[in-house]
Order: sequence, then C-alpha cells, then structure tokens
Amino acid sequence: MPEIRQNLVTKDWVIIATERAKRPEDFKKTEKSKETLPEFETSCPFCPGNEQQMSPDETLRIEKNGTWQVRIIPNKFPALSKTGERIRTVDGIKRKLTGVGLHEVVIETPMHNITSALLSSEDFRSIIKSYKVRYNEMLKDKRIEMIIIFKNHGEAAGTSLIHSHSQIVATPVVPSQVRERFNDAQEYFDENFECVYCKILSEELKDGSRIVLETKHFVAFIPYAALSPFHLWIYPKRHCSSFGNIAEDEISDLAINLQTTLKKYYYGLDDPDFNYVIRSAPTDLKNLDFFHWYLTIVPRITKTAGFELGSGMFINSSLPENDAKFLRDVKV
Amino acid sequence: MPEIRQNLVTKDWVIIATERAKRPEDFKKTEKSKETLPEFETSCPFCPGNEQQMSPDETLRIEKNGTWQVRIIPNKFPALSKTGERIRTVDGIKRKLTGVGLHEVVIETPMHNITSALLSSEDFRSIIKSYKVRYNEMLKDKRIEMIIIFKNHGEAAGTSLIHSHSQIVATPVVPSQVRERFNDAQEYFDENFECVYCKILSEELKDGSRIVLETKHFVAFIPYAALSPFHLWIYPKRHCSSFGNIAEDEISDLAINLQTTLKKYYYGLDDPDFNYVIRSAPTDLKNLDFFHWYLTIVPRITKTAGFELGSGMFINSSLPENDAKFLRDVKV
Repeated sequence: MPEIRQNLVTKDWVIIATERAKRPEDFKKTEKSKETLPEFETSCPFCPGNEQQMSPDETLRIEKNGTWQVRIIPNKFPALSKTGERIRTVDGIKRKLTGVGLHEVVIETPMHNITSALLSSEDFRSIIKSYKVRYNEMLKDKRIEMIIIFKNHGEAAGTSLIHSHSQIVATPVVPSQVRERFNDAQEYFDENFECVYCKILSEELKDGSRIVLETKHFVAFIPYAALSPFHLWIYPKRHCSSFGNIAEDEISDLAINLQTTLKKYYYGLDDPDFNYVIRSAPTDLKNLDFFHWYLTIVPRITKTAGFELGSGMFINSSLPENDAKFLRDVKV
Repeated sequence: MPEIRQNLVTKDWVIIATERAKRPEDFKKTEKSKETLPEFETSCPFCPGNEQQMSPDETLRIEKNGTWQVRIIPNKFPALSKTGERIRTVDGIKRKLTGVGLHEVVIETPMHNITSALLSSEDFRSIIKSYKVRYNEMLKDKRIEMIIIFKNHGEAAGTSLIHSHSQIVATPVVPSQVRERFNDAQEYFDENFECVYCKILSEELKDGSRIVLETKHFVAFIPYAALSPFHLWIYPKRHCSSFGNIAEDEISDLAINLQTTLKKYYYGLDDPDFNYVIRSAPTDLKNLDFFHWYLTIVPRITKTAGFELGSGMFINSSLPENDAKFLRDVKV
C-alpha cells in the first residue's frame, strides 16, 4: 500500500507510490551532454568577447588571472523593471502592484561548454560568493521585499541558454507561498520553542537514512516527504534566517557540499535537468528565531499533471530512503 | 513596466510581463493531431474489444445504441490503494497516513482517434454526467476527504495514453493547498458577508473584458491574475460548494460551455496540451456559504522554472484581457 507523508515545512502531503517505482537508471537522459560543444561560441551573449555588445552593464565581476571568472549582468528580458516606484492599487477585486524589481543573470563561467558541477572547486566557490555579494547589495533597495536566487539547468528546467548561468530576482512583494510557509514556521516555534528546520535537521542526522552528504557546515538530505524523485534539501547547520548572513567559511563549505551533490546527480543520473533555489527570509526581517534559510534541488525528471495541479498533492514514485542511499553511494 | 496582479482566490501574485509577450500563434504546436491515427487500436487498453482482458471491473458505463459511450474503470497503476484502512501515524517529525483511496479512469469515448472537444454534444454531456455519478458514489466512502476530477491532454500535460480519457482521484486527506484556499474564502466571507467567488463572477460580468463565453448557467473567463497564457476558469452562476450537487440542466449547460471553450483552444491554438480540474469542497462539508466549486483549465504551453518553484509567484507573458478577446473571437 502506498504511504502518504506530510512535509512538516510546507504542510504538503505527498503520496509515496512505490508500486509505480522506477529504478534510478530509468531517469537517466539519453541526450548528449554539452561537452561536445565548443569552448566559446560567437553567438552566445555570455561568452567572453561579447561582453560589450551583447551583455553590458555588469553589476558584479569576480576576476581570476586577469580576466573574469563570474559576471553578473541585468537580464536582457527582465520579468521586473529596474526603474520606477512601487505603487499598490486596489480597485474592487483587482489588486495590483507596479512590476518593479531586479532581475539579474549570474554567468557562472567564461567557458561555454562546461556545467557548473564540473568547475574547479575554487571557481564554484566564486559563484556562491557572487550570490552573497549581490544579495546584500539588493537588500539596500527599499522597494524589494524578497530575493530569490535560482538556477535552471536543462530544457525541462526552463533554460533557454545553454551557457552555465543562474539568476537572481528581487520582488517588491512577499509571495503568498512564502508567507504561508513563514507563518507555519512561526506557529511551530510558538508551540515548541524551537525552529522547525533545526528540529528536522537534528532528527534527520539522528536517523541517517535520508542523509546524502554531511560536510562541516551543511547537510544534504532527501526530505521525508520529498515531492518527486531525488528532490533534495541542503540545510546550514547554524541557525540563520537570511542567506545574506552566510559566513566566509560557510561559503566555502556550501560550495563543497552543493558541488559534490550536483556531481552525484551528474554522474549518478547522467546530467539530469534540474532547478535549485535558495530559500531565504523576506528582506525586511532579520535574525528570526523561527525561520532558517536553505537550498532546495528539484530534478526535472518527472512531470506534474492535473492531479498535482488540482490538489497541490504530489505523487512520488521513489522512496526517499532509496534515493538517498543511491546518491550517497555515487562516487565523485 | 510589468504589472503584478493578485489572484483574490489563491492570493497568488502574478507578474504580467507583456514585454515578453508572444502572439497567440507562437503558442501553437507543430505536432500532428491524432486524427491521423486509426479509429481503433488493438494494443490500446481503452479501445472496444479490450474491455475484458485489458480494462476490467468497470465502475460505471453509459450506454448508447447498445454499446458503451463512456466507461469508468479503476486505474491499472493506482496512486492510492482501494482496499485497506485509513491509519494516521505521528512519529516525531514523521507524519504519515496509509495511502488508501480511489483512482479511476474515465474513458471518454470508444473511438481511439477523437479528442473530447470534437465529440457530439450529447456524447460530451455523458462525460460530465459520468463525473457526477462517480463523484457522488465515492462520497459514500468514509475514508475519503477530497475528490479531484481532472483531465491531462497531451504529453506536456502528463498523458501517457493517447485515447481520450480523464481521471478521478479520491484522497483520504484534504491537501494543504485546498485547506489554505478554503480558509481564505472563509475569511473573506466573514469580513464581507459574501462568497468571494460570487463577488469575482459578478465583477467579471460587469467588466466584460476577460469573459470568454457566457451560457445559461456558466461563465468561462480568464482570471484577472491568470497564472499563465490562456489559463481559464469556468464558474457556475448558482452558488454551490460541491460539484456533486450540479443539477441536470446545469450538466447540459456545463457540457456546452466546456466543450465550446475546448473547441476554441483546439481551433484557435491548434490543439494545445492542457489540464483541466474540477475544484470542489472537501467531502465532509456540505452547502457552504463561502465556497464555490468551479473548473479550471491550464494550457501547458509555457514552462515553469526555478523562479516559480522558489517563490510560488508566476510570470505570465500574456495580458489576460488579450487572451480573453482572442478566445472570444475564435469561431467554432
């Protein structure tokens, strides 16, 4: 019989339907990887040489050996407008805001044909470092209520450009999903005098069956009620509500933990499409006892359909404990 | 500048980014439609002749001219187990339920190569009628808290079998997304002494710019804060919280409204992949003042990526008023 598990953070119910289970091999892609591409591509706006014409106005640059290693630039087709005032309007049932905010692209490497999982560990660290710098810069914009850092890898994850990159979007409103999760965490704290994320982390470490990788400051694990096969969380061990407060040695350790985990996907599941997202507290709130920033990875190897859409429940054909063991055992 | 609109029902914020707009023609598929397929396919479990071996144990049959027109059968790979008790277990952070419930498939036509939008109106009505009959039967199962009726059309919408069908899943728990929406609707009622859905419907009818099709008992319209291009709602005019209470003349009228709307998608957007879902109240609650059942259609013509995943906000590149006008003008 399937099991229905509840995610304590999101309150989501997930049907763990192992009768429908696939072997990890069945999730592997058949496409060719990008190593067959050239190292530089003249038509790519992110490749070196195209900075001035195709991707100007950089907001951050991390140098290495006299050239750039990571660049952050405004998105050429931004979802939100950098200029303008935040204005709220209510007209009967119609509530709206002006679409102001920031939308930037993190070019993770000058090389066109390498995926971030395979960069040197120093270069991978530069990506995380660049996230922190821009996160804290964006915080100063008084119109901003929320900053979302994410990566779309592969077509199924919504990428349109192949050159390795991630994105940062700063919105002038706290999304309702974030607020719900936030209120739930506050309620948990009020009842238990404890951060629900800290509680989950200590229970998961005690149990061990869903842990994928523990490093000095971070733990990668498959959630008890993972939404889909190989859905994964990386939690910082130190309680902290904002990604912007990540310390220098934590940056180094997150780089190791995240890159090793991505390599496990890359080698174990043949470079699957995935999204990762850093979930941090709304920008106006500092040093919260009840909220804990973290990173989530969602491989895009299954499709959601009408049932998920209509219920908000998910059907996961993989047992989280099996997925964790599989990834733990992938040597990188 | 883009506009950020709030959906009053879900509280979702949607970035209406018309700078990224596409013309409706750009959403059209290039694949061939299923009319090129044979009328019957020997390997299809839903085709006539395969009832006994490949899809037995039907739970409902609507006859026509001595043969079946609609059949409902258990899903061969059910997400939930029909037998067994509902047992709730809490163990520290681990909350789970036994995965009991019902999962059935509605075979919408004996013909392998026709999409439901193109059936005769009488045959389309039989589909809606079959939904009601099974919905009310399933209500009697004391383990069931929620019944979700949905259709996945096309590969992007999660279909694995091409023969026209929809599904009904009855779950032993109220999903958290449903409960949130429910609580919000109750709160709106408490503050305004009015159902938020009735309010939206009357405002939309007054405004008119987002209406796609009004029939005797139903209104099809694009929500003010539509999540994606051509996202659409069909609301019953009569306030009623459960789909199970739909009246006979409302069934006929919903069949007309839904089928005409699906034809507008079919001809206007070249048979796009889509999901539709009937959202009804949890089964234990009857005749609620504050909740209103409805049907939602989500064409799967754009992809969600890390931003949507991380924020719960959506970016819609279409202006809802333009989408409504486009569909209004499609002659069927």
